[in-house]
Amino acid sequence: MPRDSDDPPAVGELTPPDRTLMGPGPSDVHPRVLRAMSTPLVGHLDPSFIDVMNEVQELLRYTFRTDNQWTIPVSGTGSASMEAAIGNLVEPGDTMLVPTNGYFGGRMESMAERAGGDVVHVDAPWGEPLDPADVEAAFAEHQPDVFGFVHAETSTGVRQPDVPELTRIAHEHDAYVIADCVTSLGGVELRVDEWDVDVAYSGPQKCLSCPPGASPLTLNDRAMEKVLSREEPARSWYLDLSLLEGYWGDERAYHHTAPITNVYALREALRLVAEEGIEARWERHLETAGALKAGVEAMGLEMNAPDEYWLPSLNAVRVPDGVEDGDVIDALLDGYDLEIAGGLGDLSGEIFRIGCMGHSARPGNVALLMSALGDVLERQGADVDVDAGLSATSERLG
Amino acid sequence: MPRDSDDPPAVGELTPPDRTLMGPGPSDVHPRVLRAMSTPLVGHLDPSFIDVMNEVQELLRYTFRTDNQWTIPVSGTGSASMEAAIGNLVEPGDTMLVPTNGYFGGRMESMAERAGGDVVHVDAPWGEPLDPADVEAAFAEHQPDVFGFVHAETSTGVRQPDVPELTRIAHEHDAYVIADCVTSLGGVELRVDEWDVDVAYSGPQKCLSCPPGASPLTLNDRAMEKVLSREEPARSWYLDLSLLEGYWGDERAYHHTAPITNVYALREALRLVAEEGIEARWERHLETAGALKAGVEAMGLEMNAPDEYWLPSLNAVRVPDGVEDGDVIDALLDGYDLEIAGGLGDLSGEIFRIGCMGHSARPGNVALLMSALGDVLERQGADVDVDAGLSATSERLG
Repeated sequence: MPRDSDDPPAVGELTPPDRTLMGPGPSDVHPRVLRAMSTPLVGHLDPSFIDVMNEVQELLRYTFRTDNQWTIPVSGTGSASMEAAIGNLVEPGDTMLVPTNGYFGGRMESMAERAGGDVVHVDAPWGEPLDPADVEAAFAEHQPDVFGFVHAETSTGVRQPDVPELTRIAHEHDAYVIADCVTSLGGVELRVDEWDVDVAYSGPQKCLSCPPGASPLTLNDRAMEKVLSREEPARSWYLDLSLLEGYWGDERAYHHTAPITNVYALREALRLVAEEGIEARWERHLETAGALKAGVEAMGLEMNAPDEYWLPSLNAVRVPDGVEDGDVIDALLDGYDLEIAGGLGDLSGEIFRIGCMGHSARPGNVALLMSALGDVLERQGADVDVDAGLSATSERLG
Repeated sequence: MPRDSDDPPAVGELTPPDRTLMGPGPSDVHPRVLRAMSTPLVGHLDPSFIDVMNEVQELLRYTFRTDNQWTIPVSGTGSASMEAAIGNLVEPGDTMLVPTNGYFGGRMESMAERAGGDVVHVDAPWGEPLDPADVEAAFAEHQPDVFGFVHAETSTGVRQPDVPELTRIAHEHDAYVIADCVTSLGGVELRVDEWDVDVAYSGPQKCLSCPPGASPLTLNDRAMEKVLSREEPARSWYLDLSLLEGYWGDERAYHHTAPITNVYALREALRLVAEEGIEARWERHLETAGALKAGVEAMGLEMNAPDEYWLPSLNAVRVPDGVEDGDVIDALLDGYDLEIAGGLGDLSGEIFRIGCMGHSARPGNVALLMSALGDVLERQGADVDVDAGLSATSERLG
């Protein structure tokens, strides 16, 4: 049947609102990264692009704190690097241990099952980190082949402490460790080699402040050996690391067309990381998010996570009595062009999720957030001390 | 083990060479599309981005010549939309019929097998289209559930004629048709609804002249019903269309973070299609590529495909005696910043592949190509009549 209409649709010029992005990602993109995206393209097999690939890989290694040869941007958004990790490492019949303490453990489970794996759980409530004793017990009971955990849980604002302890347990049981570092890479202390993480993946649109589209992944030799000795190929051709090895490895042979512009952008975002220095960048996130946290607490609000595992890049703040989270979020967007988000899953309606990531982790953004949030909460009838909040924040930022 | 070095890598400013892209893609990107990519981001659940999604879907429908509700950009490069099509439509135990007449039939086969399907073949040599009689015979022999073919074979420069005939055969056998339109969408006549194609996928970096990263896909209701009634989920979570339906369908619920900037770029690239008019755009490709073809033939070179199935967007030109394809390609890149490509697979070393796609399908690009190719071939000792070639091209362009 022929198409109903032959008239081209009337679509005007692109005029998005000018938002300040303090939600769970994307974060505000640095102007230098935006400019890099308007660079005219070269081909994905151009000799000059090979150089760019090498540079991006080296910058990613610096940012992950790893010497892993096998460190690449996956051609997709963060869930693509996540599925590249799980779908290649988990073989049919393998058992994967996943956490239940947040949204992204559930996604790990779904990916592992589709890869043909059996899934077992290590439990912790939403909003709590995993307890190494529980991980030890789960290993003793299930002897999993692969263990996945979330270093920075975007759905709950929880930072998993004791990572070296978790990897030690896994390795004592000859298992492989996959760490979800989507909301930590480039913003929160992460040391892939020192902490003995076998596989780590991330997204570019969080603490790297890069538009989504090319997503960091690193595997050590041990993990890559498992991938390269699979009995049957990975179930996705697009994300098959043994094929990608031909393009990102020594050969530079065609596999698929890389998202050239996204690689340009990631390169610039990672240059900004290198210029700042990775440890200074972690410190900046602690300081600016610390000012935000001090402010919301002084205002009378409560953080969802205790200080010991507070995640600076994603601040989960309890919704105060008497207000609807959606009303506050809408009022911030409509009145201030400011994006924050609500809770997911078990924490839906319970928390605000306020990102403080990368280029958004700046004093100006935090000051705007505090002032706008205070105003909106007050107008919605919440019992908050806005002045105390603003003072506490500016004292920390000053 | 800690990382060897703590020093950040020294990576300078991004300064790629200024190439003219006349290879198999990416093609030259229009300046308006490059500018769209430097637009600051909004969140992927922002109400204003919902509007952008609707606009992109409507523009894609116009370009595909379809009313299919289920028309979206997949969050990855062209191979991602290809695997989204095959990996969702092919269920374990299904039989898929794929062609052997080019590189991308082989990729279809690999994806179908990973999806759990059995693969059967309809044969034609590299450089030839499928013969409907052979397709009919293959259906009679194998009764496949899904039939994939390549509308515009990037590896051979062959346009598949008789598409309505192929889809008629498939539907008489109650099969579903998947068409690879990577190198035809937006440049070569393609009528998804009128030709009764069930599923078509493409890439943005060919005739749409958009940077790779968000890739067009359309399914009719019949195909989507098969996807939504699968007994077991698709093997990729990232590319699962039943989950993507929640984000791109009526609900607009979170699945994964869309590549916002790539969607902005695709929107602008598709606006350019709508402004030009889809049929005028097909005509422009015929005219500019026709001038290129007339020129290379007048120069004394031979097209690999006969006129009846010449593919304007990808011109496969036989490498003349006495020259090495790689030397010519390198000399064009080094001397003229001009990218063309060599052959793949069975045609490796046999052909040059010269794209004439989207914003690269311009008189200026064709004139440069003719002049540079003539010069390089002459200097490499080929027996070519450069003047005759240039005259034939300029006559057609004039």
